[in-house]
Amino acid sequence: MRESEIIALFLKHLKRQGELPLGDDAGALKIGDGWLVATNDMLVSRTDVPDIMTPEQAGFKAVTMNVSDVAAMGAEPIGFLFSLGLPRGLDEDYLEGIARGIGKAIDYYEIPVLSADTNEADDLIIDGIALGRTKRLLTRSGAKPGDLVCVTGDIGRAFAGYLAWKYGLKVPESTRKALYEKFLEPRARVEEGILLSKSANSAIDISDGLSKELHLISKMSGVRIEISSWKLPIREEVWEVAEAIGKSPVEIALASGEEFELLFTVPSEKISELEVDFTVIGQVKEGKGVYIDGEPLFPLGWEHFSNRIKMF
Amino acid sequence: MRESEIIALFLKHLKRQGELPLGDDAGALKIGDGWLVATNDMLVSRTDVPDIMTPEQAGFKAVTMNVSDVAAMGAEPIGFLFSLGLPRGLDEDYLEGIARGIGKAIDYYEIPVLSADTNEADDLIIDGIALGRTKRLLTRSGAKPGDLVCVTGDIGRAFAGYLAWKYGLKVPESTRKALYEKFLEPRARVEEGILLSKSANSAIDISDGLSKELHLISKMSGVRIEISSWKLPIREEVWEVAEAIGKSPVEIALASGEEFELLFTVPSEKISELEVDFTVIGQVKEGKGVYIDGEPLFPLGWEHFSNRIKMF
Repeated sequence: MRESEIIALFLKHLKRQGELPLGDDAGALKIGDGWLVATNDMLVSRTDVPDIMTPEQAGFKAVTMNVSDVAAMGAEPIGFLFSLGLPRGLDEDYLEGIARGIGKAIDYYEIPVLSADTNEADDLIIDGIALGRTKRLLTRSGAKPGDLVCVTGDIGRAFAGYLAWKYGLKVPESTRKALYEKFLEPRARVEEGILLSKSANSAIDISDGLSKELHLISKMSGVRIEISSWKLPIREEVWEVAEAIGKSPVEIALASGEEFELLFTVPSEKISELEVDFTVIGQVKEGKGVYIDGEPLFPLGWEHFSNRIKMF
Repeated sequence: MRESEIIALFLKHLKRQGELPLGDDAGALKIGDGWLVATNDMLVSRTDVPDIMTPEQAGFKAVTMNVSDVAAMGAEPIGFLFSLGLPRGLDEDYLEGIARGIGKAIDYYEIPVLSADTNEADDLIIDGIALGRTKRLLTRSGAKPGDLVCVTGDIGRAFAGYLAWKYGLKVPESTRKALYEKFLEPRARVEEGILLSKSANSAIDISDGLSKELHLISKMSGVRIEISSWKLPIREEVWEVAEAIGKSPVEIALASGEEFELLFTVPSEKISELEVDFTVIGQVKEGKGVYIDGEPLFPLGWEHFSNRIKMF
């Protein structure tokens, strides 16, 4: 069964949902005059942790991927929980690396661990859960015609780092460092999410690649999105990799997943009040679909480049 | 590594905890004038789901085991989340059974699903997460000398049902029905937990067996607990199984896990105001340790009866 079929099968039986229907970065419940946000994301070592990643980086990433979903809702993370599935005979040093990574991440994001659970399993699994709170919720369905489309930070380095590693590309040490930082040690945009909750109309974190996230915002908001390739914030290091493998840096940037940057839309009159580093890459119009430089944008993913089941 | 060593290793690195330290039925955070409670518990099919259990029962149980931890904190469940690990080629009917079970459980407990996540894994895994709220928190550490020790419902049927199934015991159909109801379709004591939050001093749900839970309350509260074997609420059907296998029904009741009854302590002067069905089984005194009929009580578990890794 495909993931979409599995999801459809479950949705048929899960009629009882929160104030916000399933399908956003996180779930949400009204509590008092604000929202409680909750999300969970399972990291399966076999498919989500490339060999080059240290256990400490894997532990940190299990926190980051959940905190990032909370940030994409405009919420402040307030707690983390995790369940471990551990294969029998797992190396103690490896396990301690994971513990250290989770510990460093909760310090970095300044959130407490509320609950933890360990179990024996065939795979090494870290199922992370993050909770957050916000007065105003950012969803994938709030984009409005007239909004500007923006993205935090830069995009493409996560996938370019993977490609450099996977194909053993010879790149300068400074390039490798810049790419691996994003590929192996991405960070969630927590401060940005909290600030954006005041002005943005919609947001999503880039976990499956910019082009797929643009399609989600377009579809869930019922709007047309137009972006310009020359506006995309792509760093020099991504160009180097693109050249080495004979691909376009724009394609790499559009397909690059697990960036954990925030893609958001904001009314143009509010753009000047944003106290966040961001780049305007396009605009929201009436209609449907996603366009780049006037042409329809295909929802690119890692599978555009490889036959592997998951990028990493 | 043993589970206790793994936990110790993680605790070394997880300095940042909530207002309630790790080690209770659930984590808790102060929000406004109340508490937000959060807990997670992973169900691994290979070790937690006996062959006789239907996928629908397994799905329901994944919700129950988490809701029960919320109830044990005296909190009202407000939401459920889950992550699935699914082996490639898993039977679609089996998967739909799990979906139906989770759907029925959230209807039964009247809580919304806030977030769900699916992944490929070697094991079939359901990692459930439940959230709850309460004005007053019940912990494992609140028992006070003078409290009465009480338990909801009856105990022993879960393990007796397992034994009847495991050893193919010939018991009357009505006995089997009463045992399997608790063994395969246990229910969390939600209403009871909410009512107890007003008067009880401590609570824990029976997931590892009454004797182990008594030891946890005793240790975490720093008190001595004395119970009487003749006061234990053990149903006739447990006696039948005990006789068939030549064991004591009291031993079965003390070792029976995944009962999801609530064990709690309450000041004797408040006992008359409890609007809950319960049985007084003993009292809390100054000192330490757990005693039954005046003798030290060993923390019995399934391993007392079998060499299997987990009971179910």
